Amino acid sequence: MKGKFIVIEGLEGAGKSTAVNTVQQFLRHFKIQDVICTREPGGTALSEEIRHLIKKKSQNEEILTDKAELLLLYAARVQLLENIIKPALSSGTWVIGDRHDLSSQAYQGGGRGIKSEFIKSLADFTLGSSFRPDLTLYLDLPPELGLQRARKRGHLDRIEQQSLVFFERIRARYLELTYDDPRIKMIDASKPIKKVTVDIQNALLSLLEK
Amino acid sequence: MKGKFIVIEGLEGAGKSTAVNTVQQFLRHFKIQDVICTREPGGTALSEEIRHLIKKKSQNEEILTDKAELLLLYAARVQLLENIIKPALSSGTWVIGDRHDLSSQAYQGGGRGIKSEFIKSLADFTLGSSFRPDLTLYLDLPPELGLQRARKRGHLDRIEQQSLVFFERIRARYLELTYDDPRIKMIDASKPIKKVTVDIQNALLSLLEK
Repeated sequence: MKGKFIVIEGLEGAGKSTAVNTVQQFLRHFKIQDVICTREPGGTALSEEIRHLIKKKSQNEEILTDKAELLLLYAARVQLLENIIKPALSSGTWVIGDRHDLSSQAYQGGGRGIKSEFIKSLADFTLGSSFRPDLTLYLDLPPELGLQRARKRGHLDRIEQQSLVFFERIRARYLELTYDDPRIKMIDASKPIKKVTVDIQNALLSLLEK
Repeated sequence: MKGKFIVIEGLEGAGKSTAVNTVQQFLRHFKIQDVICTREPGGTALSEEIRHLIKKKSQNEEILTDKAELLLLYAARVQLLENIIKPALSSGTWVIGDRHDLSSQAYQGGGRGIKSEFIKSLADFTLGSSFRPDLTLYLDLPPELGLQRARKRGHLDRIEQQSLVFFERIRARYLELTYDDPRIKMIDASKPIKKVTVDIQNALLSLLEK
């Protein structure tokens, strides 16, 4: 039997790492043993090098253009998908992804204003038009709350330093994409952690019952 | 007055470096002083890092997928274009490019078999639909001759090790694109060096007379 691909999405500080743990514990409880976790961008040797290029603040004073950022993200994604995610799913391993394609649609599309039609054509090219996560948990949160949490963890990286308006645009796109797609489940991440955990568990139960 | 963008294209061993020198000497002769040379992929700090990712033979045994290769090439291209080429041309500097967009259409399209419509949409996204070199010199050569020359220079890199059939497909696409576009001038690179030099000079004279 093929494994399932569960993706955690949301703004910085929404609680993605905690959600990954919740999913791991849930799968363990249901005796699903073969599980791997991925993060994007990253997850292969090359994709981690690409992640480093995207994350570092300046390239000898060279600004990373929005267009190059988008293309690098998809280059990292296709390496992870072909080398790790697809082989894992085929062999029956479940994959928990810390971010995936929806992030590019929300951040680069909603946030940076790159045309969604072009991002969709990139996604079709890299992922194939039929490949989709079995379940995406979108952790929704007002950006100001997420940023407060992210700041407590220490330094913000280049992307996290953008303005609040930028994050509002990202959230708006996340919500829009969530309403359009029954495989994306919205979780209210502003609620207390116990409530968030139960909501995630319920979404996973629905997936298992399918 | 704006500078002009002259691109040298062709298979490995076609004589691109010599052609770059010929163009430089020609421009010097005509008192065009402000000239820079670029190479692709590369030419900025970030683009050179991307070049390195593309050129190295293995990533801890990780194979670079054709799709990621294409996206990395365009990420490097947009950084070079926005940070170096466009500002240079605007300030009146001429730019001599050792490869540009035509290479991706020929190598990734013709060689690797990626759909030309998708590559064109990537090109429109990264370059803008109106940006084109003022003159492209395509150095045409039978692949077996080019490979003989390239081998003499030493080790072949990952791309150069591909089969002859691969290079025949690239040449076929180069020829096809050349016939379609009056701004691409074909130079018979199998001819003696003196003849090649004269042909390049004649193509440049036509550009100056415009």
